[in-house]
Amino acid sequence: MNASRAEFIAVGSELLDPWHADTNGAYLSRRLGERGIGVGFRTVVGDTREDLKGVFRVALERSDLIIATGGLGPTIDDLTREAVAELLDLPLILDERIARSIEERFRRLALPMPPQNRRQAMVPRGAEVLPNRLGTAPGLWLGSGRATIVLLPGVPDEMRQIVEDSVLPRLPATGERFAYRVIKIAGLTESDVDRRLDPVARDAGAVAWTILAAPGQVEIHLRERVRGAETPAGIDRVDGAIVAILGAHVFARDQETMEEVVGRFLVNRGDSLSAAESLTGGGIAERITSVPGASRYFRGAVVAYSDDVKKDLLGVRKETLEIQGAVSAETAAEMARGARRAFGTTWAVSATGYAGPEGGGPDRPPGTIFLGLAGPEMETTRGLTLPGSRQTVRTRAARTALDMLRRAVLGVGG
Amino acid sequence: MNASRAEFIAVGSELLDPWHADTNGAYLSRRLGERGIGVGFRTVVGDTREDLKGVFRVALERSDLIIATGGLGPTIDDLTREAVAELLDLPLILDERIARSIEERFRRLALPMPPQNRRQAMVPRGAEVLPNRLGTAPGLWLGSGRATIVLLPGVPDEMRQIVEDSVLPRLPATGERFAYRVIKIAGLTESDVDRRLDPVARDAGAVAWTILAAPGQVEIHLRERVRGAETPAGIDRVDGAIVAILGAHVFARDQETMEEVVGRFLVNRGDSLSAAESLTGGGIAERITSVPGASRYFRGAVVAYSDDVKKDLLGVRKETLEIQGAVSAETAAEMARGARRAFGTTWAVSATGYAGPEGGGPDRPPGTIFLGLAGPEMETTRGLTLPGSRQTVRTRAARTALDMLRRAVLGVGG
Repeated sequence: MNASRAEFIAVGSELLDPWHADTNGAYLSRRLGERGIGVGFRTVVGDTREDLKGVFRVALERSDLIIATGGLGPTIDDLTREAVAELLDLPLILDERIARSIEERFRRLALPMPPQNRRQAMVPRGAEVLPNRLGTAPGLWLGSGRATIVLLPGVPDEMRQIVEDSVLPRLPATGERFAYRVIKIAGLTESDVDRRLDPVARDAGAVAWTILAAPGQVEIHLRERVRGAETPAGIDRVDGAIVAILGAHVFARDQETMEEVVGRFLVNRGDSLSAAESLTGGGIAERITSVPGASRYFRGAVVAYSDDVKKDLLGVRKETLEIQGAVSAETAAEMARGARRAFGTTWAVSATGYAGPEGGGPDRPPGTIFLGLAGPEMETTRGLTLPGSRQTVRTRAARTALDMLRRAVLGVGG
Repeated sequence: MNASRAEFIAVGSELLDPWHADTNGAYLSRRLGERGIGVGFRTVVGDTREDLKGVFRVALERSDLIIATGGLGPTIDDLTREAVAELLDLPLILDERIARSIEERFRRLALPMPPQNRRQAMVPRGAEVLPNRLGTAPGLWLGSGRATIVLLPGVPDEMRQIVEDSVLPRLPATGERFAYRVIKIAGLTESDVDRRLDPVARDAGAVAWTILAAPGQVEIHLRERVRGAETPAGIDRVDGAIVAILGAHVFARDQETMEEVVGRFLVNRGDSLSAAESLTGGGIAERITSVPGASRYFRGAVVAYSDDVKKDLLGVRKETLEIQGAVSAETAAEMARGARRAFGTTWAVSATGYAGPEGGGPDRPPGTIFLGLAGPEMETTRGLTLPGSRQTVRTRAARTALDMLRRAVLGVGG
């Protein structure tokens, strides 16, 4: 078989319901990618014979390897086998071995076999049967001209077992795999990053390049097809070119998060950290403490959601709150200073602002925020007006505060 | 327009990578379902012009309403506009109004507009522009023969705003709709809920029933097809049967969260709240303050990530920390008491424990947690050993602490 391009089809009307999230697709993308097979399309389709046939017909026109999950159960809603057999013009025949194994399975569970379970023993002629150790529906492997169709049960455990035991070993050894890398960037908007990296993107060659923005963070996702154990030379080259342009805006790679990077720096220096939060309501501390071992450097935080708390626990001056206001650079500075003093830490970060939907009058729309940082012989603040929802503003503020800290600890400035 | 059948297309190569999950599809299924429009297909496709054109060509053959998200950004990877224009044989023309609004947007943020952002002002001739209040890429509405194509940005906030403001009002009235309801349950495991509700599920009739579990929360998702303004009688009946069995374990319906429910109770009573967190590291406060207007009842929190902070800011006694340990019922009680005193609030919640991967020796494995609650003439603590990852333990602890508070405020006991 040839498998330069794969396609994933998830079958099941319930998968089109609002609350469903498919996890089979991500698993298959990873396992196929590690064997050098890219997934070009993912489709979700309901349990309707004509829709199913249509989806498989389209897939046969554009993909070499088609993996479908679901619709192999015993009920009349389960139509994947029938649809594929009709489309390929193959008769469905009873596979005695499957029938016996289903009967055996029910016997072991001391249950009578419902007659409709015999449906699961019907296979399109010529299909190879892929045993299911965890359930009744086996997988099926069908060649059709230049393409291969693999039908699997939708239950994630059963699907994975069949993929590991029977599908991956049947895939051709391409001697190739996809190498992946994620480059994480702080302190720049998506359009900034895009503009500055345009020459690198144009020169990326065989390295696939995707730019992805989350609040307060931009990611470049790189993918390269490499031979066996080869290092991904193209990715390494692109990575170097990105760092040459963006410098310290690049804060991490792959799974590593901003809070892990900050934690690593603090541990290396033997520094400690605290936080004073109003706007972010504990989100900065929550991020910092999501890292195992954060207690080595993080002492704590005060979430100050009223002026009294800012005064009493953080020592923000009454005059500052009255004249500059709770949402001001001066309040952010005094909050950071107060946390640093109260917790006795090397560093302290602070955040105050209007997350929305309410703002603070015409001069202070929702999204108006001030961040503070206090450290050894230094203090700095930053004022920003951030677009987006309450949640976006809070997330972006927390990430930006951690990035201010990272830059200060790293000594690269704002 | 006719819209008996919709199709959703998610555009973005990164969505085919192992690490991504689409959330836009679920939202769209729900909002369209509420108008009686069923989604027949969901497709994920990469940023490749030919693949995109192919997917839209197939969609035009089988669906009346095609909604696509993503690929409308300013970069050369963003090809949705181009692919659709080519497929429909329409020229792309510069929309001056969009160009001006993008420039205006950058001006407000005091940023120079990168030249490539003008790409976002190019629209296929005849397309209606759907304003984007939260970002630069507007939505586009295109009629093509019997089908309608709607192009939306992939950023969830922006996509939702455009759907609510501009897409839903343009959809035809079908006279039928899917009614949905989510019943949210706290304090029980998924198998508990499944076992206790088995008779209700068997008797659900035409109401589609799905059970879904998240850390510290179980949800029952119900769906029923009804005419126009008809109330969903089947859902109401099932809802009543669930509450009759589970009582106060049912804490909310639909979009409402635990923190919103708690906030509503506190506002109604004129009560105030504070928190003392070690284990959850700010996660309880972060949840509480995610609710707009939380400053009406929430005063603040102390995140106490060291023994000194527990002593100095919360007044936990040295002897308690030395004899009972920082992870103990007594420490949880003193933390809650200390926060209630320090913040002068009606209620205070606390959490201490080992989130993992490290524990506190053989008697205190990772997942050992203690929660505290202090209120008017009452104090209570709860000890639990929770399975799961660091993140799961922290999430479940925060949710359980809020549920303890809810039950106390409601007067229904633990």
